[in-house]
Amino acid sequence: MPRELRLRRRVQFYETDVAGIVHFSWFFRYMEEAEHALWREAGLSIHPERSDIGWPRVAAACEFHRALKFEQEFDIAIRITDVTKRTISYACEMSQDGQKIATGTLKIACVAKLPDGSMKSAEIPADVADRLKPFAYRPSAIEDRSPDTA
Amino acid sequence: MPRELRLRRRVQFYETDVAGIVHFSWFFRYMEEAEHALWREAGLSIHPERSDIGWPRVAAACEFHRALKFEQEFDIAIRITDVTKRTISYACEMSQDGQKIATGTLKIACVAKLPDGSMKSAEIPADVADRLKPFAYRPSAIEDRSPDTA
Amino acid sequence: MPRELRLRRRVQFYETDVAGIVHFSWFFRYMEEAEHALWREAGLSIHPERSDIGWPRVAAACEFHRALKFEQEFDIAIRITDVTKRTISYACEMSQDGQKIATGTLKIACVAKLPDGSMKSAEIPADVADRLKPFAYRPSAIEDRSPDTA
Amino acid sequence: MPRELRLRRRVQFYETDVAGIVHFSWFFRYMEEAEHALWREAGLSIHPERSDIGWPRVAAACEFHRALKFEQEFDIAIRITDVTKRTISYACEMSQDGQKIATGTLKIACVAKLPDGSMKSAEIPADVADRLKPFAYRPSAIEDRSPDTA
Repeated sequence: MPRELRLRRRVQFYETDVAGIVHFSWFFRYMEEAEHALWREAGLSIHPERSDIGWPRVAAACEFHRALKFEQEFDIAIRITDVTKRTISYACEMSQDGQKIATGTLKIACVAKLPDGSMKSAEIPADVADRLKPFAYRPSAIEDRSPDTA
Repeated sequence: MPRELRLRRRVQFYETDVAGIVHFSWFFRYMEEAEHALWREAGLSIHPERSDIGWPRVAAACEFHRALKFEQEFDIAIRITDVTKRTISYACEMSQDGQKIATGTLKIACVAKLPDGSMKSAEIPADVADRLKPFAYRPSAIEDRSPDTA
Repeated sequence: MPRELRLRRRVQFYETDVAGIVHFSWFFRYMEEAEHALWREAGLSIHPERSDIGWPRVAAACEFHRALKFEQEFDIAIRITDVTKRTISYACEMSQDGQKIATGTLKIACVAKLPDGSMKSAEIPADVADRLKPFAYRPSAIEDRSPDTA
Repeated sequence: MPRELRLRRRVQFYETDVAGIVHFSWFFRYMEEAEHALWREAGLSIHPERSDIGWPRVAAACEFHRALKFEQEFDIAIRITDVTKRTISYACEMSQDGQKIATGTLKIACVAKLPDGSMKSAEIPADVADRLKPFAYRPSAIEDRSPDTA
């Protein structure tokens, strides 16, 4: 059974806007918080100091079902839905007392940092794929990773 | 010919992250900046003081093609792709010297603010639809607005 | 003995900047997080829904001694240093493994929200002052609150 | 006559909070925007790629006199108030139609980035001091820069 990472979080004042609710841009940050907690749970850091690889986002999407307000507590659940040779995809659900608040997806790519400061697509290191395996929805996706077509 | 709203913008220091590039959450704020500029260009404010309607986001998505760095200038172009009785959809492209940086979509819904602080789906006021018409990709979408199924 | 409120917090990725450290603007948000946690600890919310008073900041300052980096854990300690009829002042220290990271101050004022949307200076409600008393450095400051000269 | 850098800016939706006004943390970002514009006006970038020096903030303070709301336009004026061998201090005023909104100060230090990722206090390069001279309140402060005692 694939594991998901669950996080409880309280809405901070600076996350709200004049409409009285959490600004939609924050949900993407909530997803990232959960993603990085998942990596820590897997014994990894997504950005160790002096690493020569990086993990830029290639796509992010979110649907908003209900509003969140100042000081409310809510849950974030994230799991890995796909791993290819060069990308990782996540699905995320934010909820409050079991009620769905928002659902989102995130896709990141592995890149190598070149000496001139630019980035180049790279294969996911084997040890990273190994450690993330328990969180993958389809572990086969990691063992038999398909080549990327993009 | 539908009009689009174009905005030139410079990357601020606080928009960057430790990976050395603009944090992905900012692209959703860039889209919103362009959306609100489009409303102003149409003679509207998306959040006038003491208004009893509001425009929460129901969906947002973005694909990231290239990175943006501190102090770089870039362009945001936004246009309306669909208008239903209760929602407005936008398409957005961020580019730099003609090179695509990111492409995104945004869908907002019209809501009425109830006395108890909650929100309820509402029809888009006719004068708002009228003023946004010149920016709609398919103006017919506004004249003959389809009922919402969601 | 006045109590302080202590909070342990981890640096999030979106709080860092291209210099590789937490952007200085975040320290003011860290202070606010601790302030609101102190209010909750005192049985209060600084922004209850439908309240007719508010607590805008009148001054904020911070000195930065050391940098914080992605994923590092640190502590925030906040206490009330002064309470007048209309204002509350806090002192805050952010530290990591006992080493001082930053020290700051925050001063907020009580205001009444007028029907036209503007704000007017107001006296701190007695029950709020009562509940905050245990966190005040000089409890006398609350009992014998001096008139404000500004 | 020392020059100041003036910037006109519009309040963005994501800069507001549930109290209906610009969140106080944003004023520190407004100051930084003006600071970096001043450096560009002086022919400099405060963070060129691949530079081995940096400019962390050592202190920041702001007093808030009036609130700013969504879509309002306001002005930021910044000037250099002091330059020592290792630090630069700024004074900043944010105003709207001539009315003072907020006044702040910012002090930054020059640091050298060490190979291990840490930072070490460094002297301000002569060409940087030269280029900033026209913006210094007391140009003598640059020509006859006092040694730092901290």
